[in-house]
Order: sequence, then structure tokens, then C-alpha cells
Amino acid sequence: MVERPMIGRIPHLRQNAFYGQSGGVTAVINASACGVIEAARQQSAKIGKLFAGRNGIIGALNEDLIDTTEERNDAIAALRHTPAGAFGSCRFKLKDFEGDRRSYERLIAVCKAHDIGYFLYNGGGDSADTCIKISQFAERVGYPLRSVLIPKTIDNDLFGTDTCPGFGSVAKYVAVSTREASFDVRSMSRSSTKVFVFEVMGRHAGWIAAAGALAADENNDLPIAIVFPEIAFDSARFIARVKAMVDSYDYCTVIVSEGARRADGRFLADQGTSDAFGHKQLGGAAPVVARMLSSALGYKCHWAVADYLQRSARHVASRTDVDQAYAVGKAAVEMAIAGENAIMPAIVRTCGEPYTWTIGKVSLAHVANVEKLLPREFISADGFGITSACRAYLLPLIQGEDYPPYENGLPQFATLMNKCVPKRLEPFEL
Amino acid sequence: MVERPMIGRIPHLRQNAFYGQSGGVTAVINASACGVIEAARQQSAKIGKLFAGRNGIIGALNEDLIDTTEERNDAIAALRHTPAGAFGSCRFKLKDFEGDRRSYERLIAVCKAHDIGYFLYNGGGDSADTCIKISQFAERVGYPLRSVLIPKTIDNDLFGTDTCPGFGSVAKYVAVSTREASFDVRSMSRSSTKVFVFEVMGRHAGWIAAAGALAADENNDLPIAIVFPEIAFDSARFIARVKAMVDSYDYCTVIVSEGARRADGRFLADQGTSDAFGHKQLGGAAPVVARMLSSALGYKCHWAVADYLQRSARHVASRTDVDQAYAVGKAAVEMAIAGENAIMPAIVRTCGEPYTWTIGKVSLAHVANVEKLLPREFISADGFGITSACRAYLLPLIQGEDYPPYENGLPQFATLMNKCVPKRLEPFEL
Repeated sequence: MVERPMIGRIPHLRQNAFYGQSGGVTAVINASACGVIEAARQQSAKIGKLFAGRNGIIGALNEDLIDTTEERNDAIAALRHTPAGAFGSCRFKLKDFEGDRRSYERLIAVCKAHDIGYFLYNGGGDSADTCIKISQFAERVGYPLRSVLIPKTIDNDLFGTDTCPGFGSVAKYVAVSTREASFDVRSMSRSSTKVFVFEVMGRHAGWIAAAGALAADENNDLPIAIVFPEIAFDSARFIARVKAMVDSYDYCTVIVSEGARRADGRFLADQGTSDAFGHKQLGGAAPVVARMLSSALGYKCHWAVADYLQRSARHVASRTDVDQAYAVGKAAVEMAIAGENAIMPAIVRTCGEPYTWTIGKVSLAHVANVEKLLPREFISADGFGITSACRAYLLPLIQGEDYPPYENGLPQFATLMNKCVPKRLEPFEL
Repeated sequence: MVERPMIGRIPHLRQNAFYGQSGGVTAVINASACGVIEAARQQSAKIGKLFAGRNGIIGALNEDLIDTTEERNDAIAALRHTPAGAFGSCRFKLKDFEGDRRSYERLIAVCKAHDIGYFLYNGGGDSADTCIKISQFAERVGYPLRSVLIPKTIDNDLFGTDTCPGFGSVAKYVAVSTREASFDVRSMSRSSTKVFVFEVMGRHAGWIAAAGALAADENNDLPIAIVFPEIAFDSARFIARVKAMVDSYDYCTVIVSEGARRADGRFLADQGTSDAFGHKQLGGAAPVVARMLSSALGYKCHWAVADYLQRSARHVASRTDVDQAYAVGKAAVEMAIAGENAIMPAIVRTCGEPYTWTIGKVSLAHVANVEKLLPREFISADGFGITSACRAYLLPLIQGEDYPPYENGLPQFATLMNKCVPKRLEPFEL
């Protein structure tokens, strides 16, 4: 294929693409990157260079464009089993055009300077909003740019997709860890710990917390109480529920979502700090709950806060999740070169049992700034467990193991060279 | 083999054995149980029934003796990949003869009533003490009892053995998790979190914390600072060390031992409660450290507390650790029937590189109530890292993976029937 010269604003056959990672990283966001890059390499007739933004959109603004064509095929293949963001991610939300026209103009200038015709952004609800705004601004100024969101969030709160890559693996981590820790506390309850409190992520949505319930099944009768962010926390009812479980089993495991809150809206644990999106930085609901139970019931309690461990736990990833993460990355490239714009490839569940899925697409207008909470019919009547419908939804998402290769006792992850192409523009002040 | 009648206090050819699990459980204590039970089944000429105490020594005192001969071979084999204590463990320390002669007399009465000639106890330093006392009391009252300690503790602080089963797997969990979480924070540092603080167990000894350093190697240049319990915590020096790492890498990972303490002996985090052995119940050093760094340096910090997750993480166990746990269980039975008493099978490192090991034995008098701390020469000069000698010691212990079988996305662990034999004595008040 002969490379064509850049011909102004008319889309030509072969253009470069931008790929960026945004927001909190996951165990499989690099599997999506792998899908994007491998698909782009297969589509070399349509896509010239695939640039990755160093730290997502910040890299686009700063013209820090990593030339992924410099990376070897085996390094790119290894991204499939590498957790976290290989190019750096960011927490950085573009304002509206009116509030920050300068940033939008800069993005278009960088795209023009590097002949970028495709904007592929790997993120969640906030990134969907970013994708739409960039797409709209490009259209407004007459620059042809196809914008595709590659879905990513451990929280599973993204609208328009059956599940969101990143969630299946954290769900598997939480289910596996809950089963293991429940066996532990069961061993100790006669003379020591009665309750293990396990704090998991999920700022507003209880999907991750719900996955803890999968630890129990017909072969594993484990008492588990879940504190969902969707259900206002009522300490008296909660304490009574735990007491009933301990009375009957001599122990129990409590899964508490970091986003658990009281009826008045206050989080159980509010560290008082906020991130760049204005979201409160949470953590520490588990010790609050453990102290509450010790004080009310006199039980010895242990507590854990998984924090980053849960979302980076590539060593126990769900094969289904890895496959889906790769597939949406690949599909994003194919949709972009097919001329789609302001769109997201989505996971579509074609059958529940046996579980089958395919890739569909959804307009970003339906995705941006909407949060998909756990529906009430997925939460048991008492508010502390999941229903069979929820179990039927969750269980397929944790199916299959996909171990990274180990050497010398440790998983081998890819660290890329991440060489940036020369800058063509003046520096930009963020 | 014809079963001989019990003939008073003269040891006869075939006697029953008692096995108990003690103290905090691990990912591989059941692998030791598997070794004990499978060896006992092979030695049916010498060992009649193997009883397991329900909740360790408490089961012996209460005459709650689980008949392990009722369990199927495949269930026993599955113990090898099942975390936690399949028969229940306990935190229960016998007093001296003088303080609690009643309990010792009861133990001997239970042994007599059930023709128990072997006392196999699976625990750490406190359990070594229990084994010795029981052995001494049996000798004093003329009851022939062979007492063997099967080493177990995640803390690796047991004297007389190169390493202690349970430690290798928690070390692997900590090394793997540290590598994964370091990749995560590295991705986020440009616009979000700079420091990830990871609290691990280790009340007095820094072995577990040291394992976090294995996450970095020649292929993984990751900045990691460790807060050891052996080094008095100096906040100014610590803050300066973290700042230097962040200045140079833009991020860092801090591993903090739950037992980290200041120069005056105060723990960084003291929850104010104690367990049945009189040890303080710790937890919460990570949030203390994270707040300290945020406040002193203005960094956004995330923190995790692994607690039970680390010691029950059978899904990422070290194959070396599993093999050693099984081997000491098997050896304990063989030593007991060979007539050994007040002894412990120990891991002996026969070669460092390539790593080879064998089973030796050590008198419990050398083991009881001694703590093996991390030697100063294993800690780097600045007090925040490990030396190459420490790395050479640790690395063999995390070698090899030993995944449990998965079904339906989850690891399949054994839950035994745990049927007790009929009681022959009056109830005993603990």
C-alpha cells in the first residue's frame, strides 16, 4: 500500500489513529490496548501509525504521542496478560467547549499536525462524555474525526453494554478472595475471629460487592452479608443480620462497598478528599463496620481493604473478561475505519445459559454520564444479599482462568519502550 | 493386621493419633493435614485411627475428636489445595502445669480413653510450647505419648527451620500483588495517585514485608519502600525516602508491616485489643502512613490492608510451599512412629542455587518461644529495602505455581464431613 499524502480536511484512505487510556485502570485495559494495536496492525491499509497518548488525553494535549509501531509484536501480545495502563492513564475531565475552548482547539491542532483521523478512547462514563465533546467540536470546526469509546470500568456501571471489561476480573477476584477468607474465618471462629469485613470498590454501584456473594453456592454454605451502596445503611438492621448469621454459623463474612452510605447520604467512610473529576476519594468503610460490630456484639472482627489489589489482580483474571476486553478493542478499530463516529462497541449477551456473547454497538449519547446501578430485583428482599437473577447475570462473567506466564515465581508483565514521536507544535499549558 | 487390645501404659504396636491445627491458619496448613492423614493411612500397621481435634487443642479437651478415617481419599487429597483449617483452629494457650494441672490431666484422660499414643500439633512458636508441656506432663504421669510439632506460620519467625510452611505462599501473594499494584499506581501517577501503601502481616518479624521487594527485579524497575517492624519507624527519614522515590519515578509503593513501630515501641496502628495469647490485635498502619504522606508531601495516596486475604490466598500459592507443607506433615507421622518425641520436622536448605531442600528434625526445646526476626544483614543500609542476601533467601520460596481446580469460575475447596467419634468421658469445662 502506497502511503497517500495528507490532503487537508477531506478524509483520505489511510490516516493515523490516537488511542488513550482514561480513569482508573483495570486488570484487562491492556488487553483492550492489545486488541486495538493488533487490529490496527492488520488494517495497515487504513491506519498508518497508531499513537498512544502518554497518560491518556493529557498526552494528546501535550503532544506526548507514543509511537506504538516501534513496539515488537511479542511485547504487544504480552499486553493481553499485563494489568494496569501500559501507556499511562489519567484522571482529567475536559470542560464544556464554552469553558475550555482552548483545550479543544489544541486537540484538533494535534490531530491535524499528526494526521490523526481516529480517536479511540478507553474509559468509562466520563470518557464517553469526553469522546462526545471531542467529536462534536471536531464536527463544529469541520475536522473529520471518528471518535470511538472502548468501554472500561471495574465498576460495571456503564450503560449500554451487558457488562464492562474490567468488571469480570474484579468480580472473580472478589468472589475467590471471599471464598478463601470465609474458609479462614470459619476455621478461627471458635476461639478467635467471628466476622471478617472485606471492603471492595464501587463508588455508587454495588456490582463488585454483589460478586462476593458468588463465593457461596450449593457446595459452599458460607454466611455472607453485603452492604450495597444502593441500599441506605441502617446500622440496627445490619447488626441484627450479622448477629443472626453468627448465631447460626458461629461466623460470617461481610462485604462492604466503599460507597456504602447512610440514609442521610453520608458515606460510611469519607476521607474528605476528592479526585480531579470531583468524586470523593473513599476508603475505610471496613474498619468502621468492624468497630461497629465489635462494639455492638462483642465479636472479634478482622477487616481488609482491597483497594488497588482488586483492580490490578491480573493473576486471577476472568478469561471471559480478558476475551471481551480484547474484542471491544479490536471492534473499536473496525468500527472506526468503517466510518462510525461517537459510538461504543458493547458486549451483547446472546444467551444466558449456556452463556454466549457478541459485540454490538451503541451511540455514546446513550452512554455518557449515565450510571447503571444494581437493580433492586438483583438485591434480596432484606437488602443484604443477591437474588438468583443477579447470580445468573454475574456467574458467566467470572468463567475461565487466564493465568499470565510466570518466571522465577512471578508473573511476567510487559513494560513497553513508550517512545514518543517528535513534537510538531508549540508546548501547551494544561 | 489384627488390632491389639489396649494394654495399660505400655506402648503397643498400633495406637491412635491426635492431629490438631493451632493459631492463625494459612493457605497450606491443610496441605500438612493432607500429608499427615495420607501418611497415617499408609502406616495402618502402626496407626489405628487418626483423630483431628475440632478446633485444635480445644477439641482434645472437649473430646471433640473428628474421625478422619470416615473421610474419602479424594476429600483428603483435596485438602492439599484447600486453604484455612479444615478441622478448625484455635487461639488457646495452655498455662503451666502449676497453673492449670486440670487441663493437662484432662488431655491425658482423653488420650487414654481413645488410645492416643501420638500427639501431632500443627502450629507455630506457641504451639511448640504446648507440645513440650504436654510431652513433659505425659512423661511425669507415666503416659507414653509422642509429641511432634508440624511447623506452620505465615510469619516465618519459627526458629530451627529454614522456612516455615505458610510463609512461601503469603510471600508469593505479597510479591505478586505488589508487582500488580505498582504497575497500577505507575499508570495513574501523572494526574492522580502517587503512592500506594500496602499493609501486610508480621507482628514482630518483617519477613512478609520483605517479600514485597521481590516485585522489583532487573526487568521491573519499581520503586518500593518497606517499613519493617525490626527498624524503629522514623517519620522524617521515611517521608524523605518516599519523596526521593517520587521525585525520581513520579510514584512509589510502600509496604508497611502491621507490626511497624516507633522508637518508643508504640505500634503505628494499635487497635487497643488483644487476642487470647495476649498479643495486641493490629491493623490500620496503612491508613496512618497514607495520611502522613498526604499531609507532609501533598501526594494523593491509596492504601490497602490485606489481612486474611494474604494468608488464605490459596489461588496464588507457592508450589514450593505446598510441597514443603505436605512433606512436614508426612514426616511428622514417620518421626512419631519411629519413636521420636518433643521434636519438629524442619525444612533444611541443602543448596541455595539451584535451590534444594530436605526434611531434618529439631528438638522443640530449641523452637518454643523463640522468634526469628529478619537479620539486620537482610535489610538494606537505609532500612527501607532488602539486600541481595535476603533476595537469595526469599526467591526460592515463591517458586512454582500450584493452582487449585476451578469449576464454574471458582476454586473448588474441600469441606469435610468432620464426624466426631462418641465421647467416652464426662464433659469438661474449658
